[in-house]
Amino acid sequence: MRSYALLVEYDGGAFVGWQRQSNGVTVQQIIEESAAALNGGVMPIATASGRTDSGVHAEGQVVQLAVSLALAPEKMRAALNFHTRPHRIAIRGAAYAVEGWSPRFSATQRHYRYRILNRSAKPALEEGRVWHVPLPLDAEAMHAAAQGLLGKHDFSAYRATSCQAESAVRTMERLDVVRCGEEIHIHASARSFLHHQIRNFAGTLYEVGLGRQPVSWPREVLDGLKRKAGGQTAPPQALCFMQVDYAEPIDWQ
Amino acid sequence: MRSYALLVEYDGGAFVGWQRQSNGVTVQQIIEESAAALNGGVMPIATASGRTDSGVHAEGQVVQLAVSLALAPEKMRAALNFHTRPHRIAIRGAAYAVEGWSPRFSATQRHYRYRILNRSAKPALEEGRVWHVPLPLDAEAMHAAAQGLLGKHDFSAYRATSCQAESAVRTMERLDVVRCGEEIHIHASARSFLHHQIRNFAGTLYEVGLGRQPVSWPREVLDGLKRKAGGQTAPPQALCFMQVDYAEPIDWQ
Repeated sequence: MRSYALLVEYDGGAFVGWQRQSNGVTVQQIIEESAAALNGGVMPIATASGRTDSGVHAEGQVVQLAVSLALAPEKMRAALNFHTRPHRIAIRGAAYAVEGWSPRFSATQRHYRYRILNRSAKPALEEGRVWHVPLPLDAEAMHAAAQGLLGKHDFSAYRATSCQAESAVRTMERLDVVRCGEEIHIHASARSFLHHQIRNFAGTLYEVGLGRQPVSWPREVLDGLKRKAGGQTAPPQALCFMQVDYAEPIDWQ
Repeated sequence: MRSYALLVEYDGGAFVGWQRQSNGVTVQQIIEESAAALNGGVMPIATASGRTDSGVHAEGQVVQLAVSLALAPEKMRAALNFHTRPHRIAIRGAAYAVEGWSPRFSATQRHYRYRILNRSAKPALEEGRVWHVPLPLDAEAMHAAAQGLLGKHDFSAYRATSCQAESAVRTMERLDVVRCGEEIHIHASARSFLHHQIRNFAGTLYEVGLGRQPVSWPREVLDGLKRKAGGQTAPPQALCFMQVDYAEPIDWQ
C-alpha cells in the first residue's frame, strides 16, 4: 500500500458536503469509489483536512488515501481525474504522503474565502458562488469590526449548536474584509475552525455592514458567548476552502 | 413609449446565444418575454450591442428596448430582474436611452475576455467558463504573437465562413495575453469584431503557446487571408463579453 496526499478542487453545489451521507452524493464517496479502481476494486478510506458542509466549495482541500497500485504522483493525479469524471471534482495535485502525516492533524493553517455579491441585481454568472446582498454594505466598517475577533478566544458565540468540537477555543490569525468591485470578500485564516464559524462571522459582520449594529458589536457577541446574540448563519455556497498549510510544504505533482 | 438602455449579465451556458432561435432558449427571448409585462402584454423588440454565440457569457452586454410603462431606470432594472427569474440573466443597470442612440451603432469600443485554464487537472469549479488546455502554454510567446494582429487589417483569415459582415476590415486596439496563476486570459478590444474572430485568435495563438508554430505565424495567417491556414476555432464557453464603450458614457442606475 502506498499513501498519497491529494490537492482537491470541487464545486460544492454538486454534493451534500465532504463526508459520506445517506441523503446524497458526497465528495468523499466519489473519491473513494474512483480510487477503488486503483486498489483492486476495494474502496480505500479517504480522509480530508477538514469537512466541508453541503454547498461549500473547495479550491484547495487536502485529502489522504492509500491504494495498492504503485503509481508516481502525476500518474495518480491523472488516474483519479479520469475516474472521477463526470463529477465536478478535480485532483489538482498529488504527492507521496510521508509516514505519520495526517491531512487534518498535521495542518498548521487553513484559509477560507467568503464572497458577498453586493449589488442590486441578482447574480447570473456567479449564482451558486456568492451570497447576494442587495443593500449597500460598508466593507470598511465590517473590516474594522472583524479585527475585534482576531486572536485566541472562546468562540462559542460563533459555533453551530451542532458543533462537536470539545473546546470552542480557537486562534483567528486573519479576518480581512475587502471590497473587490461589486463583491466583498472575507478572508479567514486559522489553524482550525469551528462548525459554521466563518458563516456565523459573515452573518454577524453583515449587520455591521448594513449599519444596524456598531463596529464594536461582533466583539461584544464574542464576549457574550451566546450564539443567539449574533447574526444569522450566512449561506454556504459563498464559502470556499482555499488552502491548507503544513509545516513541511507538500511538493504537488 | 419610453426607450431604455440595459446593462446585462448572463450565463451563456443556459442559452443558445443572444438572438432568437427555433432550437432553444435565447437571451433575447427571455428579455423580450419579461418586458412584455411592462408593455401591456405585448413583447417589445430588444436589440443588443452585439450578438453572442451559444455558450458565450456576458458581464456587460448592452441592450435597448422600449416599453409603454413609464418607470424610473432603477425601477425598470428591478422589474426586469423580477420577471427574468429564474433564468440566469441579471440586469445590472438601466438608463433612459437618448433619442437616436443605438446599442450597436453608437458603440465606440467592445471588450472581450477569453479564459484558458492551463493545468493538467480538468476544471471543476470553472467548468463551463474556461477552455481547458492541459499542456503548458507559453503565454509570453502568445502575447508577442498577438501584437502582430493589432491595427487595421483585413481579418478574413480569422472570420467564420458563416460571417455575414460586408467587409472583413477591422481595427484591433488591444490583444493582450496575460497569465493569471493557472489561467491565461486574452483581452481583446476593438470597435467591432467579426464572427468567431476572438475564438479564432485564441485557437491560433494556442499553436504558438504550445511551440508548434513560431511567434510570427499568426501574422502570416492574417496576411494570407485564408481561414483554413490558421488554428482551430476555440470553444465558446471561455469567452465573455465584458464591456461596451459609448462616446457619451451611460449613467447606469
